[in-house]
Amino acid sequence: MAVQTVATDTDTDLSLGPAAALSCRECGERFPLGPVFACEACFGPLEIAYDLPGGDPEELRKRIEAGPDSIWRYAPLLPVPADVADKPNLNPGFTRLVRADNLARELGVTGGLYVKDDSGNPTHSFKDRVVAIAVEAARAFGFTTLSCSSTGNLAGAVGAAAARAGLRSCVFIPHDLEQGKVVMAAVYGGDLVGIEGTYDDVNRFCSELIGDPIGEGWGFVNVNLRPYYAEGSKTLAYEICEQLGWRLPDQLVVPIASGSQLTKIDKGLRELIALGLVEDRPYKIFGAQAEGCSPVARAFKDGHDVVRPVKPDTIAKSLAIGNPADGPYVLDIARRTGGAVEDVNDGEIVDAIKLLARTEGVFAETAGGVTVGVTRKLIEAGALDPTLTTVVLNTGDGLKTLDAVAPTTGPSAIIRPNLDSFREAGLA
Amino acid sequence: MAVQTVATDTDTDLSLGPAAALSCRECGERFPLGPVFACEACFGPLEIAYDLPGGDPEELRKRIEAGPDSIWRYAPLLPVPADVADKPNLNPGFTRLVRADNLARELGVTGGLYVKDDSGNPTHSFKDRVVAIAVEAARAFGFTTLSCSSTGNLAGAVGAAAARAGLRSCVFIPHDLEQGKVVMAAVYGGDLVGIEGTYDDVNRFCSELIGDPIGEGWGFVNVNLRPYYAEGSKTLAYEICEQLGWRLPDQLVVPIASGSQLTKIDKGLRELIALGLVEDRPYKIFGAQAEGCSPVARAFKDGHDVVRPVKPDTIAKSLAIGNPADGPYVLDIARRTGGAVEDVNDGEIVDAIKLLARTEGVFAETAGGVTVGVTRKLIEAGALDPTLTTVVLNTGDGLKTLDAVAPTTGPSAIIRPNLDSFREAGLA
Ligand SMILES: [Zn+2]
Ligand SMILES: [Zn+2]
Repeated sequence: MAVQTVATDTDTDLSLGPAAALSCRECGERFPLGPVFACEACFGPLEIAYDLPGGDPEELRKRIEAGPDSIWRYAPLLPVPADVADKPNLNPGFTRLVRADNLARELGVTGGLYVKDDSGNPTHSFKDRVVAIAVEAARAFGFTTLSCSSTGNLAGAVGAAAARAGLRSCVFIPHDLEQGKVVMAAVYGGDLVGIEGTYDDVNRFCSELIGDPIGEGWGFVNVNLRPYYAEGSKTLAYEICEQLGWRLPDQLVVPIASGSQLTKIDKGLRELIALGLVEDRPYKIFGAQAEGCSPVARAFKDGHDVVRPVKPDTIAKSLAIGNPADGPYVLDIARRTGGAVEDVNDGEIVDAIKLLARTEGVFAETAGGVTVGVTRKLIEAGALDPTLTTVVLNTGDGLKTLDAVAPTTGPSAIIRPNLDSFREAGLA
Repeated sequence: MAVQTVATDTDTDLSLGPAAALSCRECGERFPLGPVFACEACFGPLEIAYDLPGGDPEELRKRIEAGPDSIWRYAPLLPVPADVADKPNLNPGFTRLVRADNLARELGVTGGLYVKDDSGNPTHSFKDRVVAIAVEAARAFGFTTLSCSSTGNLAGAVGAAAARAGLRSCVFIPHDLEQGKVVMAAVYGGDLVGIEGTYDDVNRFCSELIGDPIGEGWGFVNVNLRPYYAEGSKTLAYEICEQLGWRLPDQLVVPIASGSQLTKIDKGLRELIALGLVEDRPYKIFGAQAEGCSPVARAFKDGHDVVRPVKPDTIAKSLAIGNPADGPYVLDIARRTGGAVEDVNDGEIVDAIKLLARTEGVFAETAGGVTVGVTRKLIEAGALDPTLTTVVLNTGDGLKTLDAVAPTTGPSAIIRPNLDSFREAGLA
């Protein structure tokens, strides 16, 4: 992992709101804000340290409630300029928190079950949240090209956000992706480059680009802008609590890809407690993986601190990261909060997608099938308490993973256009 | 067109909010609220007549602003019970009004250009609005099955809404639809019936069903519930004005399928004026059709009052109604307000989809390509004034009509994973 020199070392006038510095999650060393992602001292991952607003929680709550219907209502808690809502961006977030009473009945949950449905974002996945924060960092650092490696949701999110922000985009994908995914990544008019190789080859090439003069002025949202990008997931925690009436849920079920989202949701919840915006009481975070890519669940069940990389093989492609960077942090959080990490197989994922669609009219991506499926499994195992308030995340849209359900989802009957034929079909 | 008997003739206790009666749009005759859609006297189409709330506009405005972030904030102006937001439904609406400065620059609009982006609805089209109102009517009339004929967006919207509302659904489609559309219609777990025949055959069969005992207790959202269903489109007008700061736009560009949406948007705007919620000043409504299905544009240009049916042949399938029921009303409105009806061909539709994606990061359905393309054409022709505030509707999601852009949307380059190969591609 190459550490890029900080071009903005002496620039103390970066307007990234309450963001104060970068801080190493391993050794605690602090660095000035810049497009870097690894600690110079120990190569640990960097994250944002804040000077969060003090004062009366009631005033802050009111300020947030009076803000826009997007993640920017939480600008005082994010590494973005105070006037971020006035800049051209996709204004993601503030998606529906669906009270899922029908699903609750099927699962036997009596304490209140909610689905946080992030398919309502502009490009229909939670990626719009993290990319929106990365765009502000890119602007602050004077980057003119927004980039990433991707196999799906992220490519479209970067293309759309860059188009709206007036930045160039150049996104890298494996050359042999399905046409639908290619169209979603290319339609926003930025450059889309197909790489002859695997997703690992694409990533290696991007690292090379960042170290090369060609990559000057390029912000890779999930590499050199990663500390900023990752903070976007905090907004899921903020929204869930605000939508519950400024109350912590008792239990959350969160999907695990790199593990960053779960880690940042925990960070967001702790910030709300520290700021006095919610009551300080226990909550449990549960992680959800697909059996075909479950290195964190494996480590959790085996009682290990170390996550052993795996080769992914699952229909939940948006979660298929075999070597999750935040795996150890996820294990910490699950254990510290009294949660767990569980996995479900492809069949259970498909069943869960259909269960959610049938009960609540929410058509989830495979990642949503993973969280709903894991929720069911955890309840059956007694690990998740059905008498407590539970929030399950759906981070993407079923329209993007139609292939997962297509083989088992079709008409109840094919009939001729007359009443007799309809009667014979037994649906009358 | 069979007129169904009103089972609820004597029932004066229907809790459908301010809805007072059904009224014939041709002869003005009034009928009690019920599941009927055609006038007993003249067979004209029925629509809802209201007892709208009187009193201080400022108070009504505040009541609306304090309401939920969905169409239910306008419950006092809709044929729904006052407690509608507490019932299980998909809570559609209050979608983004995107200030489209990048697109405005490309089109030379200086007076403020906005895209009302209804792809943010739960099933990603404006159909969620109309179906949500139909669900409330179905509940009020004691229907237990929600139904429709459909070739696309409507099937999914009905399936999802019924699932969430706890109603059975039974939706009819031509048997030879593409698999993606079938999956979207079937995934919500209701009955989906493929009909061996054309879309016309499907419609004829549905009319037969309504007249048969089998169809008792069935609400066909766009047939016997049509007067209620259609009112959902008024919410587009309400939201646009509220999001502009309780101000009428000067110009609106609205797609035409049956013409109902445009007609109801006009109705909504007139209601806001009558209630004193917006200032009474002129607005122009422009209708947009695809050249391959442009009977209303043809009549407008020829100066006719009658719309001559056509056989549709266009990629804008969600607008492909060759015999639009509300065509004459649309002509009236375009002429009365000083608007126009224009059409664009398939190539212009695709170009417009890409233009909107490239400038604003909004990936529209083909219907959105039609409105953006028509906006461009009207500006070039001098029919639409670029110095005035203009709102363009995008009623659906590009993910649902990927085929339209797929042939011309792909990678900028395919390269090997090294810097030399990238340099050779000329994108550095
Ligand atoms: Zn360190
Ligand atoms: Zn009449």
